[in-house]
Amino acid sequence: MNRKMVFNTLGRMSLACAVCLLLPAVVSLIYGEQKSMQSFIAVSAGAALLGLLLLLIFRSKNHVIYAKEGFAIAALSWIGMSAIGALPFVISGAIPNYVNAFFETVSGFTTTGASILEDVETLSHGMHFWRSFTHWLGGMGVIVLLMAVVRNVSDRSIHLMRAEMPGPAVGKLVPKARDTAKILYYIYIALTLTEVAFLWAGDMNLFEALVHTFGTAGTGGFSIKNASIGAYSTYSQIVITVFMLVFGVNFNLYFLLLMRKFRTVFRSSELRLYLSFFIIGAAIITWNVSSMYATLGEAIKDSAFSVSSIITTTGYATTDMNAWPSLSKGILLTLMCIGSCAGSTAGGLKVSRVILIFKQITREVKHMLHPRSISAIKFEEKDVDEATQKSVTVYLAFYVLCLVTAFLLISWERFGFETNLTATISCFNNIGPFFGTQSCYANYSAFSKIVLSAMMMLGRLEIFPLIIGLSRATWKK
Amino acid sequence: MNRKMVFNTLGRMSLACAVCLLLPAVVSLIYGEQKSMQSFIAVSAGAALLGLLLLLIFRSKNHVIYAKEGFAIAALSWIGMSAIGALPFVISGAIPNYVNAFFETVSGFTTTGASILEDVETLSHGMHFWRSFTHWLGGMGVIVLLMAVVRNVSDRSIHLMRAEMPGPAVGKLVPKARDTAKILYYIYIALTLTEVAFLWAGDMNLFEALVHTFGTAGTGGFSIKNASIGAYSTYSQIVITVFMLVFGVNFNLYFLLLMRKFRTVFRSSELRLYLSFFIIGAAIITWNVSSMYATLGEAIKDSAFSVSSIITTTGYATTDMNAWPSLSKGILLTLMCIGSCAGSTAGGLKVSRVILIFKQITREVKHMLHPRSISAIKFEEKDVDEATQKSVTVYLAFYVLCLVTAFLLISWERFGFETNLTATISCFNNIGPFFGTQSCYANYSAFSKIVLSAMMMLGRLEIFPLIIGLSRATWKK
Repeated sequence: MNRKMVFNTLGRMSLACAVCLLLPAVVSLIYGEQKSMQSFIAVSAGAALLGLLLLLIFRSKNHVIYAKEGFAIAALSWIGMSAIGALPFVISGAIPNYVNAFFETVSGFTTTGASILEDVETLSHGMHFWRSFTHWLGGMGVIVLLMAVVRNVSDRSIHLMRAEMPGPAVGKLVPKARDTAKILYYIYIALTLTEVAFLWAGDMNLFEALVHTFGTAGTGGFSIKNASIGAYSTYSQIVITVFMLVFGVNFNLYFLLLMRKFRTVFRSSELRLYLSFFIIGAAIITWNVSSMYATLGEAIKDSAFSVSSIITTTGYATTDMNAWPSLSKGILLTLMCIGSCAGSTAGGLKVSRVILIFKQITREVKHMLHPRSISAIKFEEKDVDEATQKSVTVYLAFYVLCLVTAFLLISWERFGFETNLTATISCFNNIGPFFGTQSCYANYSAFSKIVLSAMMMLGRLEIFPLIIGLSRATWKK
Repeated sequence: MNRKMVFNTLGRMSLACAVCLLLPAVVSLIYGEQKSMQSFIAVSAGAALLGLLLLLIFRSKNHVIYAKEGFAIAALSWIGMSAIGALPFVISGAIPNYVNAFFETVSGFTTTGASILEDVETLSHGMHFWRSFTHWLGGMGVIVLLMAVVRNVSDRSIHLMRAEMPGPAVGKLVPKARDTAKILYYIYIALTLTEVAFLWAGDMNLFEALVHTFGTAGTGGFSIKNASIGAYSTYSQIVITVFMLVFGVNFNLYFLLLMRKFRTVFRSSELRLYLSFFIIGAAIITWNVSSMYATLGEAIKDSAFSVSSIITTTGYATTDMNAWPSLSKGILLTLMCIGSCAGSTAGGLKVSRVILIFKQITREVKHMLHPRSISAIKFEEKDVDEATQKSVTVYLAFYVLCLVTAFLLISWERFGFETNLTATISCFNNIGPFFGTQSCYANYSAFSKIVLSAMMMLGRLEIFPLIIGLSRATWKK
């Protein structure tokens, strides 16, 4: 374990954090929100100082990042960023309690969108901007951003990307990891700007268009309105429905589109199943809730929005899904766990894992019938090696284990079974809204908020990097 | 696929069913319940006729049973037995609706103990006996019983045992499968008689001692009282607490005890973890519910009983667990899914699978840190081969898939999230009682009752045999 290099990289992360914090400071300046602006500048200065200190103390000549270092950097930088990012809320008095502010920031960076704010509309523009901007940063990944921007990153840094990027197998689009990171961010920025333009053309002003695009792009779900997207026009709702789906697609496919490999894109079984889940889910829910709506159009609009919001683990809402019948809630809960495509900004198990799990079940059935038969598993027209297959089912097992443990830990709370279980599922899969007797996370105890924050990070980093990055074995000399 | 042999064996199963039905007929005779007696005799005669017909039509010289045939026989005989076993309830008028009677019989054979009867105390002695006797038969397995009793069973019939017996790896205790079946039943009968003696010595009469022993031995849970075991003395409750645990232990360990291999038994990691789960679960729940009880002793007694009842997937009750705090209910729900030891009469995932899953997670973490490392997984001091490891995680995946599917299918019902989810978990793991707004399964629709019946069978046969036994690929010529 090259500790020097780990802390050196954390120093760079801290500097990156300082730069990012200047953006909401500018927004605060524009809207004349002095207190907010001062808090952002103060925390930015602090983060810069911390970063420089770390760089000064930990000078590392060896920049080679192995798996161990990758996990340690990912785990510590995500915790560190959230710890620093929570400070402006506390200092400005927007969220005075540090645990609450930490929860809110973790929820932002992990693109969960779970909130402890009962009335979000009281926040200043600067705070809103920062809250939503964390979604955008966390969506594609802060480490990936750093890799794209900073030079001197060795090519071994694919281990860093692997630790931060979701999905069963992270590969490079182009030979160099740094170029891959750049391409991903170019696509991300292009899609973001397109959505901003579409939303701005509707009933949102530029600020509203920006923050809601951040929430969509990162599949986060923080809104500046208590009624979430329900506060905006049908046009805006449809635009967001479409863009949520767009950001739930594997970004590799956009790269392939740019490379004009249309056939490969349209043949993608993950993309097809993802869209099928969306269409089937929306159709059943439309039918199930139609009696609650005056027109079928309204029912379709709300169902499509909700399914898009849930399957992409965004968490925006146009209606109170908690009031829907059990079947609709059951489908939404299932989609929460499935999530979107690997290599997107969304959370959940990922559709590709679901496919690989299903294929392994089918093969096991075959194997039990014909014990001597040998059959390979193919995915996207390639053979899947045994190690990847195993990692997928073991991931599911670890996923279930985390879910059960967290559910038991927050079962102290007297909000009832449905509330506690759906809150755990919602945080772990980075969605945000949950069902039951509570409408926001404010009434949960500090202990439960920390448990749920941990679940959000475990979900975002896909469990292993966080566990390994913080384990004693990793840190042994 | 040797169809002749499959139907030939099903003919034998039908004859076995006919013999078993004579027992409750005798009980009805003793208690002077003419209508019950007549129904049992009629159905027994019908089953005998069906069995003879099958034996006459399907004569098979080749008695070799391969995997395919084993699964087909297991699937069809469990469905057939339940279909036949339900008839006396319908004919006698005890449960006039056939779907209800089928649900109750499936619940009996699968040792679930889920009931559609709102007032069980109206049943005749004969019906009570039959209902509880199905638990005893289903516990160790009807096919295993047939193997123990009937001659001419080839040694390949280990495939039959594998299809019916729970656990990740079914082996033979002695070289011959038939002798293994015999030994298992000898142990089963000895333990059953011991419990009957203990219960009879308390406040139960012989009939009550018998039916409640059947319920305990098969880890079923049908009682003849509406208050379940709560209607009996503390002595009876403690006896049942202990015997439920006894029947949740892998029967191989009792065989090893008889062989005086005490060290192997005490070193069994499955046994240790199983008992740890019981002790830790009971301790936390005692502490959690203590404020609801006048004395600590009462709290310990009810907690220990409930944990023993739930972890062994029996489902007897001495108190209303639904009124307990969320934490206790959460722990019970987790234990429902874990279940007891492989090779016992209990349901659930089985403790050995939980151990193997946990070991695989740990190894995956090691593998991610040191990609080139190779480490074997040991269980009970033996190496676990890759195929078994894989089958365990794939089993978990299939288990989750079944659970989610069934939950969605019964989400039509307007009983709420907690009720529907816990009812699905309870049936699938063969427990019986569930939490939420309903106290018995009577108000579920016929469709839901069939879905839940299917879940009980899938749970009892551990998914694969039922799916494979009924699949088209198996039945192809």
